[in-house]
Amino acid sequence: MKRAELVNQIHKKKSFLCIGLDSDITKIPTHILSEADPVFEFNKQIIDATADLAVAYKPNTAFYESRGVEGWISLKKTIDYLNQLAQPVFTIADAKRGDIGNTSTQYAKAFFEALNFDAITLAPYMGQDSISPFLQFKDKWAIVLALTSNQGAFDFQFIQNQENQDKLFESVLKKTKSWGSTENMMFVVGATKAELLGQVRKHIPDHFLLVPGVGAQGGSLQEVAKYGMNKEVGLLVNSSRGIIFASRGTDFAEKAREEALKIQQEMAVLI
Amino acid sequence: MKRAELVNQIHKKKSFLCIGLDSDITKIPTHILSEADPVFEFNKQIIDATADLAVAYKPNTAFYESRGVEGWISLKKTIDYLNQLAQPVFTIADAKRGDIGNTSTQYAKAFFEALNFDAITLAPYMGQDSISPFLQFKDKWAIVLALTSNQGAFDFQFIQNQENQDKLFESVLKKTKSWGSTENMMFVVGATKAELLGQVRKHIPDHFLLVPGVGAQGGSLQEVAKYGMNKEVGLLVNSSRGIIFASRGTDFAEKAREEALKIQQEMAVLI
Repeated sequence: MKRAELVNQIHKKKSFLCIGLDSDITKIPTHILSEADPVFEFNKQIIDATADLAVAYKPNTAFYESRGVEGWISLKKTIDYLNQLAQPVFTIADAKRGDIGNTSTQYAKAFFEALNFDAITLAPYMGQDSISPFLQFKDKWAIVLALTSNQGAFDFQFIQNQENQDKLFESVLKKTKSWGSTENMMFVVGATKAELLGQVRKHIPDHFLLVPGVGAQGGSLQEVAKYGMNKEVGLLVNSSRGIIFASRGTDFAEKAREEALKIQQEMAVLI
Repeated sequence: MKRAELVNQIHKKKSFLCIGLDSDITKIPTHILSEADPVFEFNKQIIDATADLAVAYKPNTAFYESRGVEGWISLKKTIDYLNQLAQPVFTIADAKRGDIGNTSTQYAKAFFEALNFDAITLAPYMGQDSISPFLQFKDKWAIVLALTSNQGAFDFQFIQNQENQDKLFESVLKKTKSWGSTENMMFVVGATKAELLGQVRKHIPDHFLLVPGVGAQGGSLQEVAKYGMNKEVGLLVNSSRGIIFASRGTDFAEKAREEALKIQQEMAVLI
């Protein structure tokens, strides 16, 4: 998907919500477990109940790989289902990959071709040749981890460079942005530290940010919008468990819609 | 596999060779492509030809994921085959994963349970909660990227911390080692900068190192042993393309054995 189409969908739906399909088979409603592919069936019902409220969906590959070959089949069915929706959605493989050049090309083929995702999340530790191969695919996106929302973010991402006092996440932003453009690169910036979004915006005013950590992890949507929004919105705010596991009964899809609707309504006034 | 057993195998085989099963379907011999599962058949023949010379095998998951569900099936067959060899080998999923805590647990299940690997490679960017879940599995290993052998290693891994002048890869070594032990943690340190192995050994004298970059990527085995070996050898030196693609004809397994034998013979005098 092109950036213009993403921005168009955001305005159409008055939403910059991304729904994380972290569809842990041990947490999905038990009445679905009798289905041939319970994880896909769960995803399908969540998607059907929320597709008019969300502009993006983001399966985290860990929850599929943990089920081996079967999980990979569920993931394939899920992306195929997302890609045939009447209203297009932006699709993100939350895979956090990153390897040397020729190997990264294989990952790009995995997620952009074998599975037809619009975007993949990437870890920056191995530098340019681990990221650049993903930028060679037309209308596909690399979403690079800059500042994550977990406790471990404080272990390395705030190390200060003695040359220029930049924190590591800032070095990642400054260097990485030159490898691509605002049309094929985004950055992950956690919402648990919303005021840092302002610092991030100094380095990358125009890029889209993928923001986890709103809701369950404690970040506020208003704060995120205040510090992170740009003239084309420039935000995809993710919620996973808060939506998909809002209920674990037979009403799970309905409750997921209610949660998504609450967030979408908050977003509508911010856009 | 326990560390003692790994060390035992190294002495038995007089080898610390790890063979990288980067089995790119576009590079395997064409006569194999008519097999039902050509990548598995290729791996099987490589393994049969080299299992007495190598102590470890390391499929890089990218080359399997790029083929979608089929690739995941080839990977499953390959690890199952490795796990039934008469002489045990150490198995590494070169997956370079890393995610927030509950998600990392899913990756651990994927590679330690759904697939029964001994070890997985991990990216350190997200810190402790992205690594620790892998250390909760008995006799399983986390192999953390410290200093990689690619060009992009220079982008971030050498950034100097203004607090203590440590380079980023040193901060990773110093902090990460405290999360596990020499019995469940190793580090990736590239051989293209062999003299840096000495610097690495100051921080982690006793850990095993997984060393890529010998051969095709230019590192010398003698240099690696000189700077990197410890009293229990402490090295797994990987070679991928130089062995598995030594020939692309019908003699590929025989030629792979010849290349592996050359390296094993060099290793035998160094142990």
